[in-house]
Amino acid sequence: MSFSELAERPETTPYDRLAALGIVLPPPPTPVANFVTHVAEGRLVFLSGQGPTEPDGSQHTGKVGGDVTVADAYGHARLTGINLIAVMHDALGDLARVKRIVKLLGMVNATPEFTEHPAVMNGCSDLFIDVFGARGVHARSAVGFGSLPGQITVEIEAVIAIED
Amino acid sequence: MSFSELAERPETTPYDRLAALGIVLPPPPTPVANFVTHVAEGRLVFLSGQGPTEPDGSQHTGKVGGDVTVADAYGHARLTGINLIAVMHDALGDLARVKRIVKLLGMVNATPEFTEHPAVMNGCSDLFIDVFGARGVHARSAVGFGSLPGQITVEIEAVIAIED
Amino acid sequence: MSFSELAERPETTPYDRLAALGIVLPPPPTPVANFVTHVAEGRLVFLSGQGPTEPDGSQHTGKVGGDVTVADAYGHARLTGINLIAVMHDALGDLARVKRIVKLLGMVNATPEFTEHPAVMNGCSDLFIDVFGARGVHARSAVGFGSLPGQITVEIEAVIAIED
Repeated sequence: MSFSELAERPETTPYDRLAALGIVLPPPPTPVANFVTHVAEGRLVFLSGQGPTEPDGSQHTGKVGGDVTVADAYGHARLTGINLIAVMHDALGDLARVKRIVKLLGMVNATPEFTEHPAVMNGCSDLFIDVFGARGVHARSAVGFGSLPGQITVEIEAVIAIED
Repeated sequence: MSFSELAERPETTPYDRLAALGIVLPPPPTPVANFVTHVAEGRLVFLSGQGPTEPDGSQHTGKVGGDVTVADAYGHARLTGINLIAVMHDALGDLARVKRIVKLLGMVNATPEFTEHPAVMNGCSDLFIDVFGARGVHARSAVGFGSLPGQITVEIEAVIAIED
Repeated sequence: MSFSELAERPETTPYDRLAALGIVLPPPPTPVANFVTHVAEGRLVFLSGQGPTEPDGSQHTGKVGGDVTVADAYGHARLTGINLIAVMHDALGDLARVKRIVKLLGMVNATPEFTEHPAVMNGCSDLFIDVFGARGVHARSAVGFGSLPGQITVEIEAVIAIED
């Protein structure tokens, strides 16, 4: 489903689009430590970094560019995006309250010589545009980290804006 | 002092809690280059990254997961949190103006195979909840960087919200 | 041109200062993937990470502290700053609408033992103060990443505030 097609169908909700994509939202992730999954301040909501956790709780691990391919890592970024949407649903009650995905920081657990971080992060960016349409188009950085918690392959944090 | 205990005592101020913890705030850190420790915009204040600098100016250095243990790095994250609180005190005049610790980015100078970033970052998160109570509960990411200035072990930046 | 000199000359515009520095703004960068260069929300504008791309499209690559010197990387951070200003001009129509450079995240593609990230990032910080005067003084973090897209030497993302 292309961005232009979605832009022409503003009456569809994010839930319609999730269903069309065959995505079932998992329960919101439980923080592994002394913090929360999101804090709202004014019209902005800051979301904690999420990772590629499957509904059964297992996580995808490894170094992208080493034992993890770009294609696999794209899928992990998409899965991370699903987990971020689960947080948004939990935080807002209704995904229709998402006015805009503002900014993503895409953190790739990569080898020192890896170059294709944008291709990995597109797994999340493509999903957000599929689900939120024009409201899902965001600013971002997609960069390589030396290590991530539990050696997960990707972690993504987000700033979103909500309707009044 | 637990979070629930603090939540039941809203009349205590952050200064009371700092005193109860035996913490003396240092002077606000001086930026090492051409920038400032914080910028306020509307109700948000963006704090520059701070590190584990002792009151005498010395800094804790090394690679967490290599020559630096998780327990030591937890202490460094706590010390970094104290320095961030010193910036807040300098910026706001009164820590009671902190409405919410919104978002932390916990940057750990770690070996490529390190996995316990959340346990390190709890040194700062635990402190903020001890000092600010419910207002100290935040969103965060805790991730591994390839290197940090002067090879400090941790660096943390923050977004906070202030009362009108 | 010093900060104090600029502070005394509020009547000069950012364009006057760019001209005095001999800087010609390039066209705004085209995102390499499924995102945009900036998103505005309220008085804040979040800018996607930009890199050291020359007007001809070539990029500076390599590891700072390895095959790339601090002096060269300072120049790359300055070039990245020019590209961020090009995005601001494109986003706002008039750079005089920049009320404040709020926060920068300076990402240096460095060797694991590199220590001089602030000296690199000053290339951008110095430029912003030269061009925007007191409005260009910002909070920031300058830290080392394990890898960056295409192995560019530096990437910088920004949060700015705009006039009503």
